[in-house]
Amino acid sequence: MTVAWIGLGAMGAPMAGRLATEHDTLVWNRTASVAAAHEREHESRAVDDLADVGEADVLFSCLPTTAEVADVVDRLVASLAPDTVWVDCTSGDPAPSRTVAATLADGGIDYLDAPVSGGTDGAASGTLTIMVGGDQNVLEQVHPLLELLGDRIVHVGPTGAGHATKAINNMLLAANLWTAVEGLAALVRQGVPGATALEVINGSSGQSFATERIIAERVVTREFPVTFTLGLLAKDAGVAQSVLDDSEIPAPALRALGELIRATRNELGPDVDHSAVAQLVERWADVEIS
Amino acid sequence: MTVAWIGLGAMGAPMAGRLATEHDTLVWNRTASVAAAHEREHESRAVDDLADVGEADVLFSCLPTTAEVADVVDRLVASLAPDTVWVDCTSGDPAPSRTVAATLADGGIDYLDAPVSGGTDGAASGTLTIMVGGDQNVLEQVHPLLELLGDRIVHVGPTGAGHATKAINNMLLAANLWTAVEGLAALVRQGVPGATALEVINGSSGQSFATERIIAERVVTREFPVTFTLGLLAKDAGVAQSVLDDSEIPAPALRALGELIRATRNELGPDVDHSAVAQLVERWADVEIS
Amino acid sequence: MTVAWIGLGAMGAPMAGRLATEHDTLVWNRTASVAAAHEREHESRAVDDLADVGEADVLFSCLPTTAEVADVVDRLVASLAPDTVWVDCTSGDPAPSRTVAATLADGGIDYLDAPVSGGTDGAASGTLTIMVGGDQNVLEQVHPLLELLGDRIVHVGPTGAGHATKAINNMLLAANLWTAVEGLAALVRQGVPGATALEVINGSSGQSFATERIIAERVVTREFPVTFTLGLLAKDAGVAQSVLDDSEIPAPALRALGELIRATRNELGPDVDHSAVAQLVERWADVEIS
Amino acid sequence: MTVAWIGLGAMGAPMAGRLATEHDTLVWNRTASVAAAHEREHESRAVDDLADVGEADVLFSCLPTTAEVADVVDRLVASLAPDTVWVDCTSGDPAPSRTVAATLADGGIDYLDAPVSGGTDGAASGTLTIMVGGDQNVLEQVHPLLELLGDRIVHVGPTGAGHATKAINNMLLAANLWTAVEGLAALVRQGVPGATALEVINGSSGQSFATERIIAERVVTREFPVTFTLGLLAKDAGVAQSVLDDSEIPAPALRALGELIRATRNELGPDVDHSAVAQLVERWADVEIS
Repeated sequence: MTVAWIGLGAMGAPMAGRLATEHDTLVWNRTASVAAAHEREHESRAVDDLADVGEADVLFSCLPTTAEVADVVDRLVASLAPDTVWVDCTSGDPAPSRTVAATLADGGIDYLDAPVSGGTDGAASGTLTIMVGGDQNVLEQVHPLLELLGDRIVHVGPTGAGHATKAINNMLLAANLWTAVEGLAALVRQGVPGATALEVINGSSGQSFATERIIAERVVTREFPVTFTLGLLAKDAGVAQSVLDDSEIPAPALRALGELIRATRNELGPDVDHSAVAQLVERWADVEIS
Repeated sequence: MTVAWIGLGAMGAPMAGRLATEHDTLVWNRTASVAAAHEREHESRAVDDLADVGEADVLFSCLPTTAEVADVVDRLVASLAPDTVWVDCTSGDPAPSRTVAATLADGGIDYLDAPVSGGTDGAASGTLTIMVGGDQNVLEQVHPLLELLGDRIVHVGPTGAGHATKAINNMLLAANLWTAVEGLAALVRQGVPGATALEVINGSSGQSFATERIIAERVVTREFPVTFTLGLLAKDAGVAQSVLDDSEIPAPALRALGELIRATRNELGPDVDHSAVAQLVERWADVEIS
Repeated sequence: MTVAWIGLGAMGAPMAGRLATEHDTLVWNRTASVAAAHEREHESRAVDDLADVGEADVLFSCLPTTAEVADVVDRLVASLAPDTVWVDCTSGDPAPSRTVAATLADGGIDYLDAPVSGGTDGAASGTLTIMVGGDQNVLEQVHPLLELLGDRIVHVGPTGAGHATKAINNMLLAANLWTAVEGLAALVRQGVPGATALEVINGSSGQSFATERIIAERVVTREFPVTFTLGLLAKDAGVAQSVLDDSEIPAPALRALGELIRATRNELGPDVDHSAVAQLVERWADVEIS
Repeated sequence: MTVAWIGLGAMGAPMAGRLATEHDTLVWNRTASVAAAHEREHESRAVDDLADVGEADVLFSCLPTTAEVADVVDRLVASLAPDTVWVDCTSGDPAPSRTVAATLADGGIDYLDAPVSGGTDGAASGTLTIMVGGDQNVLEQVHPLLELLGDRIVHVGPTGAGHATKAINNMLLAANLWTAVEGLAALVRQGVPGATALEVINGSSGQSFATERIIAERVVTREFPVTFTLGLLAKDAGVAQSVLDDSEIPAPALRALGELIRATRNELGPDVDHSAVAQLVERWADVEIS
């Protein structure tokens, strides 16, 4: 089988590399030198002309937003064979992805949204969680390929459901992070060291991934290592707002928290680690959580 | 050593029972028959007259709120021997507890706030987490007693710090619960079953005790078993508001969430399980998370 | 000049009636009998077939949402003469309205968004405020017609700016209403009668149209007369959310308030007066503002 | 009659000056030179020793917060004659004011809380609004004095009700200001100039004192004249939070807005004009409302 990978970013490159260990893998990137480098490091084949990926049986995209996916689809759709499957690993937006899926369906091509979580480590080791939206039969077709990428492949619902799940998951991370930092800032003011407060909370009912991993490992240590940027968290929060728009449910808390994340991104810039959300609350509160 | 226990509620009764296995334990309850029953079930000694607990070396209180603790302290303080230690396991309020501590200090009596988490199971098995505020030397004095009650005894800071930590922990539970339910309601609308969404989130960065235990075990199952009432969660959220007041830090998200919990308590009544918070969001959203 | 009016609702009917006093006015409504009745009451000419409005020099639309406008435009655009002007008085949504404008522009037709405020009284007397988005020269062309409808015609910006201004204005009404009711509920609890509190606030810096007109006239009197429904206010709040999405500014307060309005609509139903927003807060607070 | 005035700040000084036009008026200020200067400018009598104000029949206080009032009351109460009336014009806090009133009542002294609105202009011209909490008969006793200070004297309720009304009024100003700035920032992004948007909103249902006076006169002009500081607005918002605490009603919006005002004060400092609230939202949104 020939597969193709579009978008060789921090996540896409190692994921395409894993496919290349077992399959003939074409790789394309907007900046051609990145694809050439990928070919040298992995057993992939770099293509210069986007149209050349059209020969693949299964295409993967892993791009910054759904806007770039839609653009690439528009350029390729006419030249793709019916029964091609398009697997979109982008952390995308459900509503425009449904439009992308409809465009592809007109050409007889199946679309799955399949965003991932697990970070660059998970991408390199093939241990990602993959949340798949779309037709279950199509998922079964490409399941062996996805098994090279992740060890937890969950069919979450119809087209767009994968993107929605990823966006809400990341919005909950943002929400849990923000609210925990507010609470910890108050505790520091009451004389409770941040690390001590976390020791209790992480063994109790206030625990979250945000308190146990992000705040304990990145905030209290004052390290804020840049592995997942605030800009990307804010983008995901923006997609979550779109999901809320589309769902028409009242969500006062997530709405307000999404906007606070946006404000934080604007105050601190997009390039810091997402854990730096803590720094804005700390500045407001004039305390350091440590 | 003689110890005394004031307040034999759902948590206090088993905790006093554990002390009684190793120490001469006086027990008092506002309703005297409850103390008499405790004496029959455990090796404790029921006292009818509150003043009789004054002979104990260490007094424990475990009452609904700090108002009741202050009342009991006022009635007893004049008759207590200097060097008595008062350990307050109430889920109390830091600021008035500092007043209680000052009242006791005038009589030469030490005060520790020592609220617990871990539920009635943890109380019965002596595996609670105990968050202690006050003087570290005093804590060391009573540490052997606390070891009968819990297996995780954390000195979190000065007087009131234990109460503050408990309140913020429970407020974070409430916050994580509310925001997760908003997000899950949106996902259900996008065609993602609640249980499927949780499967992904609980293995990813949006995870929290609220998603993994409360929503997965109580909401998705539609069981809402009453083990910790919404009334108590709202009370703790109210204490958290006091902590925020006292800390003078800006906390827009926890403030708004605290008020939504209060509104939920008023809409659904105090006697349902705290997981019923989900039911108000579900009603607003006209979906069921299952 | 021949004008046409599409949509004879509570606002559209009297507005079309005013145009008919000076111009040959075609009127069309989805339910044909409404147009026929309009012809009998005013000097308008009812048309059964939507296509017949195509002969007008200027077309007005006044429909529930931009979705209906887009639909009508799609049905008519091919048959309209270039240089026709389309004036859309719908309380519409800026982003899809820009798509509508582009569709019309392809046919050489100019589009103005021109939502109004001032209620049915203002519509009948021609004293509306009209907020116009689009080309200033086009506005000048139709200015004499608009003068029959309103006495305050403000060119607010490019296409969509009229809709945006209307939506934000109404969102501010909703926000001012909700926050005032929270504050008044607290004052009632402090022993201040609602009417007394309003007497002070309306002469002081907390004053708003919401306190001076809506709460004083509709809430404190317990009348809640249905003149502008909660359903419509919630719809406008939804458009405001779209404007916020599109503007990409952080707006935590309006976001949260928009969702509380949505929740209120879901709790109380769409058909009560918008002033009934007070009733949800009163229910939560267990007080009556009177 | 002899009256006394304690606290000669920006409001207190002109108010005491007006009393001095008709009554023997003792004035005291923490910094004695301020009282001496007042004596030179008005027909008042400066006293150096606080105890000397005790000879007055009616005492007025106008201090930064209720903490200072409580302190002054504690120093004076033993030396005041029964039937003295204490009128507290401080923008104070209801709950501790009730304690102050109880302390005075033990000495046979009546207490009215009587905060004012209308600014320094109103203070100089005697055209303030005065919101009075306490016994109506006591109010009648001092009504002639209050008529020298204000032209709108409203008995709002029992002790503390005046303070509560003032705090909620100012919190509504803050809320209306913040939400309007969010909305205007979005409109500017949509191409609507701030002044144009205000022209519409101020003639429509979104109008408030905040939009009509504060934003139109201070923000759009970029003047931000310092007449009422952000520090004072944040203090009043803090009192409003206390009123909400005390009232036990769910108020998610005012809670969140109060915290945003607190954050703004911490970000911009207390000494800028309260209209500078707009500057934080503008910074987050990267727009200027003008």
